[in-house]
Amino acid sequence: METVLRDPIHNYIYLQDEVILKLINTKEMQRLRRIKQLGTTNSTFHGAEHSRFTHSVGVYEISRQICDLFQRNYPSTTPGDGNWDNNERLVTLCAALLHDVGHGAYSHTFEHIFHTDHEAMTVQIIKDPRTEVNQVLRQVAPDFPAKVASVIQKTYPNPQVVQMISSQIDADRMDYLLRDSYYTGTNYGNFDIMRIMRVMRPYQNGIAFDLSGMHAVEDYVLSRFQMYQQIYFHQVSRGMEVLLTNLLARARYLAQNNLFPANEQPTLLLPFFQDQVDLLDYLRLDDYVLNSYFNLWTTSSDPILSDLAQRFLNRKPFKSIQIISEEHPQIIAQIQQIAQEHGFDPEYYTGYNDCFDLPYDAYDPTQENPRTQIELMKPNGELTELSTESSLVSAITGKESGDLRFYFPKEIQPEVNQLNQQH
Amino acid sequence: METVLRDPIHNYIYLQDEVILKLINTKEMQRLRRIKQLGTTNSTFHGAEHSRFTHSVGVYEISRQICDLFQRNYPSTTPGDGNWDNNERLVTLCAALLHDVGHGAYSHTFEHIFHTDHEAMTVQIIKDPRTEVNQVLRQVAPDFPAKVASVIQKTYPNPQVVQMISSQIDADRMDYLLRDSYYTGTNYGNFDIMRIMRVMRPYQNGIAFDLSGMHAVEDYVLSRFQMYQQIYFHQVSRGMEVLLTNLLARARYLAQNNLFPANEQPTLLLPFFQDQVDLLDYLRLDDYVLNSYFNLWTTSSDPILSDLAQRFLNRKPFKSIQIISEEHPQIIAQIQQIAQEHGFDPEYYTGYNDCFDLPYDAYDPTQENPRTQIELMKPNGELTELSTESSLVSAITGKESGDLRFYFPKEIQPEVNQLNQQH
Amino acid sequence: METVLRDPIHNYIYLQDEVILKLINTKEMQRLRRIKQLGTTNSTFHGAEHSRFTHSVGVYEISRQICDLFQRNYPSTTPGDGNWDNNERLVTLCAALLHDVGHGAYSHTFEHIFHTDHEAMTVQIIKDPRTEVNQVLRQVAPDFPAKVASVIQKTYPNPQVVQMISSQIDADRMDYLLRDSYYTGTNYGNFDIMRIMRVMRPYQNGIAFDLSGMHAVEDYVLSRFQMYQQIYFHQVSRGMEVLLTNLLARARYLAQNNLFPANEQPTLLLPFFQDQVDLLDYLRLDDYVLNSYFNLWTTSSDPILSDLAQRFLNRKPFKSIQIISEEHPQIIAQIQQIAQEHGFDPEYYTGYNDCFDLPYDAYDPTQENPRTQIELMKPNGELTELSTESSLVSAITGKESGDLRFYFPKEIQPEVNQLNQQH
Amino acid sequence: METVLRDPIHNYIYLQDEVILKLINTKEMQRLRRIKQLGTTNSTFHGAEHSRFTHSVGVYEISRQICDLFQRNYPSTTPGDGNWDNNERLVTLCAALLHDVGHGAYSHTFEHIFHTDHEAMTVQIIKDPRTEVNQVLRQVAPDFPAKVASVIQKTYPNPQVVQMISSQIDADRMDYLLRDSYYTGTNYGNFDIMRIMRVMRPYQNGIAFDLSGMHAVEDYVLSRFQMYQQIYFHQVSRGMEVLLTNLLARARYLAQNNLFPANEQPTLLLPFFQDQVDLLDYLRLDDYVLNSYFNLWTTSSDPILSDLAQRFLNRKPFKSIQIISEEHPQIIAQIQQIAQEHGFDPEYYTGYNDCFDLPYDAYDPTQENPRTQIELMKPNGELTELSTESSLVSAITGKESGDLRFYFPKEIQPEVNQLNQQH
Repeated sequence: METVLRDPIHNYIYLQDEVILKLINTKEMQRLRRIKQLGTTNSTFHGAEHSRFTHSVGVYEISRQICDLFQRNYPSTTPGDGNWDNNERLVTLCAALLHDVGHGAYSHTFEHIFHTDHEAMTVQIIKDPRTEVNQVLRQVAPDFPAKVASVIQKTYPNPQVVQMISSQIDADRMDYLLRDSYYTGTNYGNFDIMRIMRVMRPYQNGIAFDLSGMHAVEDYVLSRFQMYQQIYFHQVSRGMEVLLTNLLARARYLAQNNLFPANEQPTLLLPFFQDQVDLLDYLRLDDYVLNSYFNLWTTSSDPILSDLAQRFLNRKPFKSIQIISEEHPQIIAQIQQIAQEHGFDPEYYTGYNDCFDLPYDAYDPTQENPRTQIELMKPNGELTELSTESSLVSAITGKESGDLRFYFPKEIQPEVNQLNQQH
Repeated sequence: METVLRDPIHNYIYLQDEVILKLINTKEMQRLRRIKQLGTTNSTFHGAEHSRFTHSVGVYEISRQICDLFQRNYPSTTPGDGNWDNNERLVTLCAALLHDVGHGAYSHTFEHIFHTDHEAMTVQIIKDPRTEVNQVLRQVAPDFPAKVASVIQKTYPNPQVVQMISSQIDADRMDYLLRDSYYTGTNYGNFDIMRIMRVMRPYQNGIAFDLSGMHAVEDYVLSRFQMYQQIYFHQVSRGMEVLLTNLLARARYLAQNNLFPANEQPTLLLPFFQDQVDLLDYLRLDDYVLNSYFNLWTTSSDPILSDLAQRFLNRKPFKSIQIISEEHPQIIAQIQQIAQEHGFDPEYYTGYNDCFDLPYDAYDPTQENPRTQIELMKPNGELTELSTESSLVSAITGKESGDLRFYFPKEIQPEVNQLNQQH
Repeated sequence: METVLRDPIHNYIYLQDEVILKLINTKEMQRLRRIKQLGTTNSTFHGAEHSRFTHSVGVYEISRQICDLFQRNYPSTTPGDGNWDNNERLVTLCAALLHDVGHGAYSHTFEHIFHTDHEAMTVQIIKDPRTEVNQVLRQVAPDFPAKVASVIQKTYPNPQVVQMISSQIDADRMDYLLRDSYYTGTNYGNFDIMRIMRVMRPYQNGIAFDLSGMHAVEDYVLSRFQMYQQIYFHQVSRGMEVLLTNLLARARYLAQNNLFPANEQPTLLLPFFQDQVDLLDYLRLDDYVLNSYFNLWTTSSDPILSDLAQRFLNRKPFKSIQIISEEHPQIIAQIQQIAQEHGFDPEYYTGYNDCFDLPYDAYDPTQENPRTQIELMKPNGELTELSTESSLVSAITGKESGDLRFYFPKEIQPEVNQLNQQH
Repeated sequence: METVLRDPIHNYIYLQDEVILKLINTKEMQRLRRIKQLGTTNSTFHGAEHSRFTHSVGVYEISRQICDLFQRNYPSTTPGDGNWDNNERLVTLCAALLHDVGHGAYSHTFEHIFHTDHEAMTVQIIKDPRTEVNQVLRQVAPDFPAKVASVIQKTYPNPQVVQMISSQIDADRMDYLLRDSYYTGTNYGNFDIMRIMRVMRPYQNGIAFDLSGMHAVEDYVLSRFQMYQQIYFHQVSRGMEVLLTNLLARARYLAQNNLFPANEQPTLLLPFFQDQVDLLDYLRLDDYVLNSYFNLWTTSSDPILSDLAQRFLNRKPFKSIQIISEEHPQIIAQIQQIAQEHGFDPEYYTGYNDCFDLPYDAYDPTQENPRTQIELMKPNGELTELSTESSLVSAITGKESGDLRFYFPKEIQPEVNQLNQQH
């Protein structure tokens, strides 16, 4: 029997398969309720407090709708006819739901410090027989977990399934753009998902879009570009991210040098400091655990740890200047010296942060990870690549956008500003 | 210089006073970012992950808009003329922003177990010289903290100020209805706030509404009623709440009987177990700390603590039946016996939960806490009470709505259902 | 092949049957584009300029979604099992689309003056072999037009079909509440249509609603009540309606007394003045034709016709007072006398307007047209009537709401106000 | 006393000046209620039935908000300081409200056939002492009508006022993008008007935008581009437009050759056929009048007039092919021949339609009508032109977008398609 979840983005999320319902109820999926989708972004956009859990069920729902549309309008009649084979439905929906299950708290920052990898973790959670996720998937078939994992790893043979979950216009991106727009209260990420789904169609090598829907696809690419510029790369949130990086680095330093007082030991983090991380250790971490340690550390006897923890919890982001490459070494050294003079150890009180994104790219076999380009289908069945049809998309194709900034405590901002004006 | 925060409900929140900006940046206000507005409700409505911080700035913004409207349309010219005195603006806005600053994690449940009181805590935070909030307020005037606190306590002399923050149609309720609707993705709580603000007007004894706007006010009362029925009283969220109550009760039992293993001691909770709570202890608690202890307890050597913690974190809510008074003692005893037979200690595996709300009431001096009724003003200046004008409001005036339920583990649901059918 | 129409309320309207597409393209349906849904209401709510055409396709779309849901969740397996028989789909959708095809320009007012009846006209358009609608329907089966007409007339044997199109909670009302809310820019008419559709279910004697969805149904009834109070009964729009009534009455008087100058003869209206109306005459009328005559009449040699036409076109609504029965005969006579003294013929410059609606009623066999009540279905299959479950609905059940007003020219408003204060 | 109008786009429209209220009540403004904003577009997007009246009050409201913001944040203190002089408020608001008052029914098409010009008409309506608009404006000051007219004509000395009403990012465009999006039910035209208004600022030579708001301005330019591509240039609506052009051309031909039967004479159109148009003739025309003539003509004795009128009223748009210049003369001749062979006079049954728009352009003094470019202001006060900052805008700067199509009756579409495939 169909059950539903109420969702602000898709109104209802329809759960029609027992397996999906069971997956949602696993502890690995429920853990995503305790991990914010946007990390430190909600220090700038206070409404954006939504979790990876809401995003995951949203990606599932979009995939479900696409499967339904494909089955209604393009059902396969003979194997290999390039149409949609409804036997792919369940593996698609499971992969959609689980695609982010390996994410940890503040993934980007955490992975930087502790050398973990959320995609590898997702695969491990799906395959490791100790997880509830794996147990649910195995009930479908012994090789089902491996199948689902291969979709995540993009090695699954059917490109339609892979591209629905992971491509330059996939259910993942579509959900996060709409959801992050809604929760931040901006509308840069809005695009016409109903129309995009109407012009989507399976073909031999994946998923294409009717040429008549070109402008809707174009609008989606531009919306994503704008979300990066306006929301994801916001310099204040990044000031919180640098703070977090330095705070975790300080804790690691203390732990690795046995400088943590006994009662301040972060039990659940120790495996990470010792680089001996088991999957089950990983699965106990979430935003709650990390922030709870930060809370304890606010009264630490280590002054740097205590100060950084307070700045992070009480939202005192580092300030920054944009770095243009030529001035780079000189100005950094000067800022670090100013920090030092004010008693701030530059190692823990300053730092770089770069944010770059490739808004769209056509297929380029010479790249390390060539991207699947967005294909438009003409009435006669011929394909044409998006940027050859849209001058707007063409203007941002293959060009990274973003910037590099250098962060430092607010206390030295006046002196840095003076410095900056001299350059 | 005016700064703005982007907000999904009010679009922009305008910060025009230095004091307001400083209050928002205090650690006591920032702590509200780590406390969910709706406690366990997001276990039912997954989108509702917003914090008390977003609600607080929303209440501030509504109050700011009302102050502006009052000053534009009903400025006082002589003291006591019943119009709006703009000298009240700052105390109003501070009280609006701070009205929930004393809330703790899962307030309702927590207060039940630990006998704290969020309103008293709000007053204490405002008045205690150790808080950043108090330090900011004192910069306005030495007696300013006491003034702000008296608005919270409803003893402030100007009833317009008190009613704007706390009455049956105040900035607090207006924000939470709109916000909770938005984040749950339902629209039961929507009402026409623009129209309500247009028909609001100050008068000698508080705030009244033009009779011509009666239907907008009626719609607000009904929206609130519906939100309680559909969202706040949802039986699944309450199944999580009973679980949480029992989990905290078990932890208190272990602590008070010295049964906690040394490494499982919840340092930050100890003052609460020992009933020796200082304000600064209280201010260190938040959702993150509590959930982080639950996480640690999932591997506790105490099997009840460990099991309840797992159920809570992994979202396995207790199930329930509605209790009609006459059948009460008998059926409860039977359910508890069934639980016992399955090895579930009834003290920690069953429990009552009642949810009742008085959707609206006219003033009744015989009540313990008589409510300020909603007054409508006729063109000739006469007042008339809402329920005498609206047959719809009249139908729910003075009548509590809600229900009493008894909760138990899902494992014994089949047997309870059988039992229930016999009654 | 499925085609779609873009619609602001339902996003897309899905046309999946050739017959539906052909019906939309008939001239009788296209004529509805030239008739405003809300008559004179847009003189008060300027955004409400939508036509009966948009409403008609909306009613079709809601019906289509209900048919789909019924077929997915409650398909009939044996005749008479109380479930949904999908053979009823086409007759349902045709009736939904055509239910308003007989409406004329300013129906309410026009029917009052010219004794036409839009429902009878709808039936005639469906049945008369000269219409394109009839020709399309006949292609399905010779008796298909009669079947569709019987749904409109509520004599169709399957009560599920009749109630979906015409009951106290039908596709018609659901669309107009949402649509009129959207176009007026108010939100009184919003309710949770998705949830209502989820709890709807066919049963032996029609359509019922799961008891668990009671509050959503309640909210719908209240929304409708509020729309009547706030939008449909607005006194300014009714001031335009009285003006229109008097204008048409004056034109009829001139025509029937051969007082129309030759070049001012309203060719297309003549059959109506002569009470010799053929269906094809009726089908040529629309808002454009009527307003175009008003435009011509602004320069008429008859001063009353010319003045009333100018007032109507240039939006100079009559003013009004509310009539409480006891004061009735006296005050009306006085107002008419004042009008007379100012040179306004009371017959054409004053008038009553009453607006009453029965927001909801339980079935009452003693009434002339007893209404089908809204039935809620308990988990055990028993039915219970809405107002017995909802104290809010109970408060308005069986009670007409609205008022009676008397209208007059703005020029005499000061004197009428003085008069009114004396009473 | 402030009055308000309820508006779906801006929620409320605030009327704070007696002059504005009076202007809205003039018959020239009320006439705009009878003229659709988007002409034949609603034959494709059925929801888009809004009138020029709603758009006009919307442009007024946006201008009012900008004036308020400018006065709050950038009030002029000494003449010529580049800030906002609030004495400009009334002339600005009047020009905003009246900017479209000269529009006629189906302006684009009508002007093409009858050589009228809506901007010239606007100026005339403002200046001609016979209009109510002029009478209201003259009450402000004898030269006030001329001042308001000069804003429309862009000769008013203060460039801030002119640019607010008429530039590449003005109140006119902002309102129509939001409004047309809302009424069509698409969201291509949505952009963040609140943010744009926050970054707008007056300066010496007009209005600039803070560089920090570049992405919001960029988003606006792209939204406008997309609306043109997706809505305004829709080929089906243009098929109705060609039909309308040919219908009016046929009527003109009949009139000028005295071929109209006496009782089919379109009295109100005669001055246009005879090229002797007085302002008062012009002001009697609206959508209602034109469509009412079309209605009469459906039974004309002239078979072409009758057939085209029926096609237009019953929505049978011409079909089309896109014309690429090189194939042009040959294919057109062939289509016309096919039409001829089917008995369709090519003069009235075929036609070109081109739609081109310059989405954005930087200032180019060599052009005939150089455009005011969009200026961004750096923190140091320097200006920089939009397309130099935005690679997306740069991609469409100075490039016309649109296409040229050739239209013909649906009846010959199969043969034209065959023809087209040969090319």
